[in-house]
Amino acid sequence: MPNDLLIKNVLPRGHRRGDVLIMNSRIESIGAGLIAPPGIEVLDGTGKVLVPGFVDAHSHLDKSLLGMDWYHREPGRGLQRMVADERDLRRSPDWVYERQIGRNAEVMIGNGATHTRAFVDIDTDAGLRGLEAMIAVRERYAAALTMQIIAFPQSGVATRPGTEELLDAALGEGADIIGGIDPCMLERNPVKHLDLLFDLAVKHGAGVDVHLHEAGALGAFSAELIIERTRATGLAGKVVISHPDFLGGVDEVSARRLIDGMVEAGIAITTNAPSGDPKPPLRLARAAGLTIGSGCDGALDSWGPMNRSDMLFKGYQLAWRNGLSTDEELDTVYDLISVGGATIMNVADFGIAPGCSADLVLMPGQTPVEPIVALPVDRTVIKAGRIVARAGEYLG
Amino acid sequence: MPNDLLIKNVLPRGHRRGDVLIMNSRIESIGAGLIAPPGIEVLDGTGKVLVPGFVDAHSHLDKSLLGMDWYHREPGRGLQRMVADERDLRRSPDWVYERQIGRNAEVMIGNGATHTRAFVDIDTDAGLRGLEAMIAVRERYAAALTMQIIAFPQSGVATRPGTEELLDAALGEGADIIGGIDPCMLERNPVKHLDLLFDLAVKHGAGVDVHLHEAGALGAFSAELIIERTRATGLAGKVVISHPDFLGGVDEVSARRLIDGMVEAGIAITTNAPSGDPKPPLRLARAAGLTIGSGCDGALDSWGPMNRSDMLFKGYQLAWRNGLSTDEELDTVYDLISVGGATIMNVADFGIAPGCSADLVLMPGQTPVEPIVALPVDRTVIKAGRIVARAGEYLG
Ligand SMILES: [Zn+2]
Ligand SMILES: [Zn+2]
Repeated sequence: MPNDLLIKNVLPRGHRRGDVLIMNSRIESIGAGLIAPPGIEVLDGTGKVLVPGFVDAHSHLDKSLLGMDWYHREPGRGLQRMVADERDLRRSPDWVYERQIGRNAEVMIGNGATHTRAFVDIDTDAGLRGLEAMIAVRERYAAALTMQIIAFPQSGVATRPGTEELLDAALGEGADIIGGIDPCMLERNPVKHLDLLFDLAVKHGAGVDVHLHEAGALGAFSAELIIERTRATGLAGKVVISHPDFLGGVDEVSARRLIDGMVEAGIAITTNAPSGDPKPPLRLARAAGLTIGSGCDGALDSWGPMNRSDMLFKGYQLAWRNGLSTDEELDTVYDLISVGGATIMNVADFGIAPGCSADLVLMPGQTPVEPIVALPVDRTVIKAGRIVARAGEYLG
Repeated sequence: MPNDLLIKNVLPRGHRRGDVLIMNSRIESIGAGLIAPPGIEVLDGTGKVLVPGFVDAHSHLDKSLLGMDWYHREPGRGLQRMVADERDLRRSPDWVYERQIGRNAEVMIGNGATHTRAFVDIDTDAGLRGLEAMIAVRERYAAALTMQIIAFPQSGVATRPGTEELLDAALGEGADIIGGIDPCMLERNPVKHLDLLFDLAVKHGAGVDVHLHEAGALGAFSAELIIERTRATGLAGKVVISHPDFLGGVDEVSARRLIDGMVEAGIAITTNAPSGDPKPPLRLARAAGLTIGSGCDGALDSWGPMNRSDMLFKGYQLAWRNGLSTDEELDTVYDLISVGGATIMNVADFGIAPGCSADLVLMPGQTPVEPIVALPVDRTVIKAGRIVARAGEYLG
């Protein structure tokens, strides 16, 4: 059902203070003293700002422990142990995929996300159960959250027989994108891993999104292989490298060359604002025209307790870690937590302009950047012109 | 007036779940099924944890713009310009010292701080007006917040005639500690700057707290001069180095030598969880027995918009930036945001044990570390057995 709404006297990002009229789920007009049809719902925007809906371009809804008992993390677990711990957790009778994915989705929406790219683990223990739950949640929340699903071989694929077939099936059953992970460091066979991903992507007309935690020169090498395969398969605009912290771990000349290579091949990146160094050189990447999204990554999962499923808080972290402080710098945070991710998701008509879908977040503030630094922040979340969350609570 | 309170069925840090009985503003006993005198106020601690009051060991209450119009920060301001911008701001008719200091104090208390070490700028423009307002606020909030005041020559002292006399007067009129700043980088004359500070400290029986933003070997040099003067003046236990990020910018052998020197001389540090690298090597410093506090630094001031006056959020940032993730690691955050600062402030009877002053924070959580990662967090703040804030709001 199309939705109408009038937001009076609000300060939209990129506009002067005025009214925003939403008709048939889309922004109809922006200006002073707009006349709305009688009976339309009106929100008072006095003292508030309006920004585009947040895009969590890298989420792991199927890992969240939200609402479950506190998970005690043992010290000194290595990577393989953490992967195995997570598979064990999912075998426990307390684990219910659809409930956990739904809880995370509601928190995400309550905090202002209108779109997400959600990874879902595919392995020979769980099979496609995570994917099926993810698809069910996508349908349940479709009026509040636009979701693309990434079939993700968290436990590896090159050396785990049966996983490739599951990924193939996942792409046939509703996953939009094939995920990859550390072709050298985890998979130990970068060519086999990446060829497998790109073959599946071509077969299904899917995108590719590779977790790349490899440091410095190793990450750069994997990125070069991804660039080569993106060019060879003509997948420009459909390939993403997640967590490319290695770009901050090579010299600036190499970083520029890699970034230019990604731009030219049509590869985007997503960053989660790493807590340590190195981190992606955002100024360099922006200047080169690289498409950059951001995501909250796994939020409160067995891996660690620190992440929140809150893109505005992610924006705070991005600003803090990258020394963004002036108003002009802080404004670029919305490119990271919203606009960039929408570009990666190929969302048509995204933004605050007549004709755009009315996917918006209304927050207190004297200037659009104030909410980024004013945590915690009250939010009213609007999806296609309908209010889907108030005060951080998903309304159903 | 002494306060009594019974907190039923709560999980105090370092104890099993039980009751906490507060009599005459102090913790009387901790245990299961405590019998309280009739008529005593009772708080239900079910589903909640109890931790010691937060100690903001490095605050700048006199810089806060809380409740004022958004401050537009121009790009490309250097250090001298930012210092001058702040002095200009304070000359504007909109600036009211006592109002701003009070607003920050209320936010700080609402967020759980029961103690603070507050810097106040002393310069030839403002004279002692900031100090006088700080002292008035200290008296006004004395039942909620224990405050030590640091007379701080933000604009420099070695080359600014008249400032030394003002600092001397400040220590005579109620400041507890003499502050210093970047003896080489800002003052350009480390021996003159530090001798001046330590002479004033000895004269007034005051402590010393030096902002040290100098990098690597330069910061190490200034620290050595501070260690020498602490030994020479017998000020062990009364000297603090703030922001010693240089400890992460020298090799580990040098860092160990400097840390051992500080421990031996009786010098403590405070860290604000720097957003970039290097940062103080906390594990190394803890292992060596260094006293470590933390503080929110200037919160929403003309320097930058990113800091909040919220020690629990500072704890989140400390955990995130230092990779603290297991329960055992996260528990050490309370040493940084609470216990360490209380040691620096020489607070007698601090902690959760019979006989201690009942300065406490009650928060939802299954384990004491959960609130550190569960932002935003509801808090009930207790000072000397009296509830001074609920749901983040100072009650007066
Ligand atoms: Zn991820
Ligand atoms: Zn400071």
